[in-house]
Amino acid sequence: MTKWVYSFGDGAAEGRADMRNLLGGKGANLAEMSNIGLPVPPGFTITTEVCTYYYANGESYPESLKSEVEAGLAKVEATVGATFGDASNPLLVSVRSGARVSMPGMMDTVLNLGLNDETTAGLARHSGDERFAYDSYRRFIQMYSDVVLGVEHHLFEEALEVVKEDKGAILDTELDAPDLQRLITDYKKIVEDELGRPFPEDPKEQLWGAIGAVFGSWQTARAVTYRRLHDIPEAWGTAVNVQAMVFGNMGDDCATGVAFTRDPSTGENIFYGEYLVNAQGEDVVAGIRTPQHLTIAGREKQGSDLPAMEETMPDVFRQLDEVRANLEAHYRDMQDIEFTVQKQKLWMLQTRAGKRTSQAAIKIACDMVEEGLIDEETAVMRVEPQSLDQILHPRLDPKAERKVIAKGLPASPGAAAGVVVFTADEAEKLAQEGHQVMLVRVETSPEDIHGMHAAQGILTTRGGMTSHAAVVARGMGRPCVAGAGEIRVDYKGGAFSIAGVTVKAGDWITIDGSTGEVIEGRVPTVDPELSGDFARVMGWADAARRLKVRANAETPEDVSTAAKFGAEGIGLCRTEHMFFEADRIVAMREMILASDEAGRRHALGRILPMQRADFVEIFKLMRGKPVTIRLLDPPLHEFLPREPAEFEEVARATGVPVERVEARAAALHETNPMLGHRGCRLLNSYPEICEMQARAIFEAATAVGEETGAPPLCEVMIPLVGIKKELDLLKAVVDKVAKAVEAETGTAPNYVVGTMIELPRAALTANHIAETAEFFSFGTNDLTQTTYGLSRDDASAFLTNYEKRGIVEQDPFQTLDQAGVGELIEIAVERGRGTRPDIKLGICGEHGGDPSSVGFCERVGLDYVSCSPFRVPIARLAAAQAAIRARKHAAEKATA
Amino acid sequence: MTKWVYSFGDGAAEGRADMRNLLGGKGANLAEMSNIGLPVPPGFTITTEVCTYYYANGESYPESLKSEVEAGLAKVEATVGATFGDASNPLLVSVRSGARVSMPGMMDTVLNLGLNDETTAGLARHSGDERFAYDSYRRFIQMYSDVVLGVEHHLFEEALEVVKEDKGAILDTELDAPDLQRLITDYKKIVEDELGRPFPEDPKEQLWGAIGAVFGSWQTARAVTYRRLHDIPEAWGTAVNVQAMVFGNMGDDCATGVAFTRDPSTGENIFYGEYLVNAQGEDVVAGIRTPQHLTIAGREKQGSDLPAMEETMPDVFRQLDEVRANLEAHYRDMQDIEFTVQKQKLWMLQTRAGKRTSQAAIKIACDMVEEGLIDEETAVMRVEPQSLDQILHPRLDPKAERKVIAKGLPASPGAAAGVVVFTADEAEKLAQEGHQVMLVRVETSPEDIHGMHAAQGILTTRGGMTSHAAVVARGMGRPCVAGAGEIRVDYKGGAFSIAGVTVKAGDWITIDGSTGEVIEGRVPTVDPELSGDFARVMGWADAARRLKVRANAETPEDVSTAAKFGAEGIGLCRTEHMFFEADRIVAMREMILASDEAGRRHALGRILPMQRADFVEIFKLMRGKPVTIRLLDPPLHEFLPREPAEFEEVARATGVPVERVEARAAALHETNPMLGHRGCRLLNSYPEICEMQARAIFEAATAVGEETGAPPLCEVMIPLVGIKKELDLLKAVVDKVAKAVEAETGTAPNYVVGTMIELPRAALTANHIAETAEFFSFGTNDLTQTTYGLSRDDASAFLTNYEKRGIVEQDPFQTLDQAGVGELIEIAVERGRGTRPDIKLGICGEHGGDPSSVGFCERVGLDYVSCSPFRVPIARLAAAQAAIRARKHAAEKATA
Repeated sequence: MTKWVYSFGDGAAEGRADMRNLLGGKGANLAEMSNIGLPVPPGFTITTEVCTYYYANGESYPESLKSEVEAGLAKVEATVGATFGDASNPLLVSVRSGARVSMPGMMDTVLNLGLNDETTAGLARHSGDERFAYDSYRRFIQMYSDVVLGVEHHLFEEALEVVKEDKGAILDTELDAPDLQRLITDYKKIVEDELGRPFPEDPKEQLWGAIGAVFGSWQTARAVTYRRLHDIPEAWGTAVNVQAMVFGNMGDDCATGVAFTRDPSTGENIFYGEYLVNAQGEDVVAGIRTPQHLTIAGREKQGSDLPAMEETMPDVFRQLDEVRANLEAHYRDMQDIEFTVQKQKLWMLQTRAGKRTSQAAIKIACDMVEEGLIDEETAVMRVEPQSLDQILHPRLDPKAERKVIAKGLPASPGAAAGVVVFTADEAEKLAQEGHQVMLVRVETSPEDIHGMHAAQGILTTRGGMTSHAAVVARGMGRPCVAGAGEIRVDYKGGAFSIAGVTVKAGDWITIDGSTGEVIEGRVPTVDPELSGDFARVMGWADAARRLKVRANAETPEDVSTAAKFGAEGIGLCRTEHMFFEADRIVAMREMILASDEAGRRHALGRILPMQRADFVEIFKLMRGKPVTIRLLDPPLHEFLPREPAEFEEVARATGVPVERVEARAAALHETNPMLGHRGCRLLNSYPEICEMQARAIFEAATAVGEETGAPPLCEVMIPLVGIKKELDLLKAVVDKVAKAVEAETGTAPNYVVGTMIELPRAALTANHIAETAEFFSFGTNDLTQTTYGLSRDDASAFLTNYEKRGIVEQDPFQTLDQAGVGELIEIAVERGRGTRPDIKLGICGEHGGDPSSVGFCERVGLDYVSCSPFRVPIARLAAAQAAIRARKHAAEKATA
Repeated sequence: MTKWVYSFGDGAAEGRADMRNLLGGKGANLAEMSNIGLPVPPGFTITTEVCTYYYANGESYPESLKSEVEAGLAKVEATVGATFGDASNPLLVSVRSGARVSMPGMMDTVLNLGLNDETTAGLARHSGDERFAYDSYRRFIQMYSDVVLGVEHHLFEEALEVVKEDKGAILDTELDAPDLQRLITDYKKIVEDELGRPFPEDPKEQLWGAIGAVFGSWQTARAVTYRRLHDIPEAWGTAVNVQAMVFGNMGDDCATGVAFTRDPSTGENIFYGEYLVNAQGEDVVAGIRTPQHLTIAGREKQGSDLPAMEETMPDVFRQLDEVRANLEAHYRDMQDIEFTVQKQKLWMLQTRAGKRTSQAAIKIACDMVEEGLIDEETAVMRVEPQSLDQILHPRLDPKAERKVIAKGLPASPGAAAGVVVFTADEAEKLAQEGHQVMLVRVETSPEDIHGMHAAQGILTTRGGMTSHAAVVARGMGRPCVAGAGEIRVDYKGGAFSIAGVTVKAGDWITIDGSTGEVIEGRVPTVDPELSGDFARVMGWADAARRLKVRANAETPEDVSTAAKFGAEGIGLCRTEHMFFEADRIVAMREMILASDEAGRRHALGRILPMQRADFVEIFKLMRGKPVTIRLLDPPLHEFLPREPAEFEEVARATGVPVERVEARAAALHETNPMLGHRGCRLLNSYPEICEMQARAIFEAATAVGEETGAPPLCEVMIPLVGIKKELDLLKAVVDKVAKAVEAETGTAPNYVVGTMIELPRAALTANHIAETAEFFSFGTNDLTQTTYGLSRDDASAFLTNYEKRGIVEQDPFQTLDQAGVGELIEIAVERGRGTRPDIKLGICGEHGGDPSSVGFCERVGLDYVSCSPFRVPIARLAAAQAAIRARKHAAEKATA
């Protein structure tokens, strides 16, 4: 026969922590604490299967439920030594919902259930505190009526106000027992008026009402919507927890508190917590009274005069300290606990894994490995990859004062200060003179790259988390605050203003790219401490992971950073970034303005040695590791200035009539550049560009190979392929150049040719494309743009609103959309491998550095992820966690 | 034992027409003609299986092939009464390739094979024409050396020039037999010099050389590429046809000619053809001599003095006329034939289905049904749907003279003349004054709609087949020539120029939107004759098809046209087109410029009655048929002028400060508008727009229902959904308005809510979206843009080049890309029906009117296609053909 009710408390329980599916998270946890002998107020859990039964059987209960609940209740009564509904010494209980996962929209809590006119009098007598009893009763009526009976909350608030006004009271606490008795009468009248029947006085009726309300709340609109959004099956159902009440506010021998088993801020192995004498749980949180430290050491460290629990209740403290040791030994993790002391008796109300800073996470993980509590893989799982962002960059000195004048998006982490400049050229100039500068722009474009490099940080007033400024800044490891929309930039006046504050060029500002704050003046920063613990955790991570981690980088500086952070190759070297430098852009423009192939070849001939030199440097830095080089991707108009006023200058520099510059710019104009004449489309229009780039790559590779003896592996990547033949034609060009270089130098370059998969059509026809492509690199930025039909540059107009309204759960440009974009990747992986089983597969979009997206990459079996240099450690850790999870999952499957 | 060689000729054959796979197209056809007793020069076909064997066995032949070829040759010798290689009466043969389908890159033809010094002398004696014999010999050497031996063609041309120079001759025909004999010596020397061995004199060696050359040509690079592009399996192989030569140039009792069994231009059931006495096949085609008519009636009709064959060779003509009757009775279709008369003996060299105009196709189909030759479904299959475009629009009077001054893309069919205007406003003004105008623009935008409506036709100098001008013109049925890039428009000067010609505003021009021609002056046009035959064929088509056909239309004029052409509903009513009219655009702009929801609601309140009136008109015209109304789709900036100069005017009209207009325009600017804040994204930002439109629809529907007693079925379509919740939120708004209208009027509107599937993500998550959507309409324009990552507006920069180089076979915006976009549609169909089995499925992109795309829609089981009104008949016919093909396919499968 199915068992519907599981008891816990009194040092034992019928349930366990691993029965979460049956008992819900809360119920399983309460059972576990009981089992390990901790003092948990006794109670019982009505299983989730009752919920399922309830809805499958026209909202009725299983036959034996009633008797099982009665039995559970009798056990609690026996343990507590009080009786439910007994007028002299009444047992009071709390009733709470508890699904497998925490879920908004569900009924939360009813406290003090079991009170009525009679039992309240009994409680008053038994506790010796009349006010306490009546206050508990009136709170119970209000809570029960609201949550269970559906009477509107404000009616009770109004009645309370009337009583307070009559009395001339301001605080609730000024009301005495008679006032509260009057209020109870008023409350009951409200309920009877609203519902046409009296407030239930029978504790059993109260209990079953609350149980029904929990099950009913499983189908509220909010809960249903939440489940749909989070793919929680309706069939899971919720459990109901009924637990004896304990009170921390029955006198000075009572207390309540919260604690962490280690310092959540530093990770130090010390007991860290606070308590309040004669108080309820919410009083600690509410902050009306100043909480006291648990330990003498804690009190002394903070210079507090208030006595520690170690001093005021030494016995209870010792008990609590033992609980701390027990919990850590049992859960093998730092715990966040809640407790109540009722008349010198300690009761544990909750334990859960404690939140901690990334520094603390790393230290705790390492310490626990040394203490023998956990193994190295568990340590790896204990550090949140995303949180490494906090420690890899400089941050604001926490002790320094700061005047925040604006807030934008935390687009690239780290903090920096500099004097304001408004143009990239100015940034470069001042930086060369030795100044620290902060580049402030409405938005940035590829033309600003040199200025972004020269600056300490970047602030823009337009664009989102994936705007040009944000993407490039993250790539460079420069702090960036983007889209600070309230700032008005006046380029002409050389100043920006916000809410009355005007900041001029040359003034100092500081930005915190981790929070999005813009701060007036110069705030000191603290450099990252990549301590020994950090290196140890990363070492364990590297041992655990399967996915390789590469970096997206093209400048020598970025490539060095990538190598320093452990990149195992370059996954995306964007060659166009190399074309924007001062002398190169002129040659590039000459090529664009040339009227025939000969003219283009002439200009390309000037670019060749410069591009070759770039590759030589990158290959040397990477020491034989693979380098994926993406051939020219952006449309040509990106290399011309935007403002017609600047055409004159281009005309002068290139020696072309200004009319021709204008005409060419007009001809190159595009309505939707993202979907335009770029990538392989451009290279197929002008194969001589492909030729020049292939030559630069192969000549550089050959030279470096000769010099160092370690010839690099060149992965030549053709962007934006949607049709196999686009790739075929360009691969033929690349192969021809390779043959030519081999003939000239006597050395065959070590290379493969592959493509980005960044268009839905490429993913769908991956079986064909893989006939030619030797590797795929998923360009998830563009793949997200095309799959969603969503421009990264324009999405900010509504995407924030979409996140707020829950239309999307996460920005799909930050976290891979597994349902849409992810399915296309899975299709491409399957079809690509179907054609070419050993095809190399990687990802080089922004998502390559996003932990949950890295998990996806592990699941679909990619070979590597590639991300911006500063995210390499994050990706390494995320990859390790994904691999560990996958192994666990496989092991569980094998067992089952 | 496998049979490798199949003989034909002499009134019988071993093969048949349905043995195309084994004998190739040509061989099967020659066999069939022989079987039905037509006089075919005898010969034999070496099967495609020999080709397969050849490549499977290291380029060697099956053992028994030699003897089978010898036997085949012996049969030909017996039939002809001449012997291969015989010096006195030599048999000469042609050798041709013949795969299942015609394939470029394959060896074409070697004629006169069997000639050498001895047999040529014999041919001269036997034919009594020395020059004929030596000319045949030297042509044979040249052709064989080029095609079989691979000697370069130009070497022979040069030798010929030398002989002609020496002789002082200009034409080849001036050379006499001795000259030709000298040339033969020269030719042989060339071959020996080039190859190091003499030209093969042995006819058998010649024959095996030619057979080997045919099989060898199966693997030329060009043939391999063609097969890859057209998915022709390599295993198919080619056949080789060896056939006795006949000569139409052996004297005045010889002739050669071509004919159609009916008039290919009108379809009339008359014998229609030409012949030349004493001539070879190529002479008829070359046009050096004027061909003569076959029939007296034909001669008289054309007022020709040259005698008809009916007069010069009455016996042969009677024979030929019988052949004509035989062929039509046998093939049950109009045939295109080639014949040769050698010394009064008729030989049939070819028959195939004849090409015909669309008028002729319709007439022949109807006539043949009446003659009992074919059934109605076959008649439906005989008319090329695309060709209907020729007859549904006015066309240029074929007799009128025309001076073509430029050529653009044939963007919207039909011909029209008008006086040139350069702005939409001017077009409207002059049209209202009663002028016929031609709107000439660099490109058009939604602001020009009223001018496009007022004009007879539209000419643009920029944009492709799917530019705004082209799409809108096709929708309106206005002729349009788009992207005439050589034309320079000078708006300021009020003129355009091309290659020295300047056309001023007010000058007449004519355009032919079916050919892309731009013509100076006013050319008379001929109106379409939708004769009884047209209606009959369409009736049979309607009886045969399964797919419903709807139209994309929103103006009363277009909706009327759609109804006239047989549309069974409106599949896409684009509501934004309604916002561009003069008084509405002001209210629309007020809405855009409003600073809050109240302001927007106020402006929308002014639009409501106008929009409601539009819907009333459409609903009335459609008489209860379903109407799919797409809510506002384009981004808001499309409703603001492009030129900052026009902001002043907007400011005046709306009473908003010009600074605010500028600021709003700047804020609305988008980098990639196609991927921006539009469709459901916009409607979710401003649900009040959705509310207003839903109200206009439901109020109009209720009013029309009351007035006519036939309430329309409103299909409310939410555009650009990529995430289910986008649709959920807007469906809730629509449902709320429906309830409100029901409460106000007492009538519940008859409506469903659905969505466009126009983003890859929508297709992939169609199972979720179908939980809410009651119908899907595939917006294949945008789905193609996003799947390919290709902007329709910008693609012309390279798409033409892509088509030329075979990177794409067809413009994917005209013909659905089945590999990419098509798979997404199939996925969406399957997943949509999985969730909601009765979900209504249609297509409303440009592809809805493209016959091969309609075939795809039939195959994947859509419920309807929707296209521009003028394409409705095309879609009806294409749908019928697709259904007939599907039934045949199913029947064949059932049999097999």
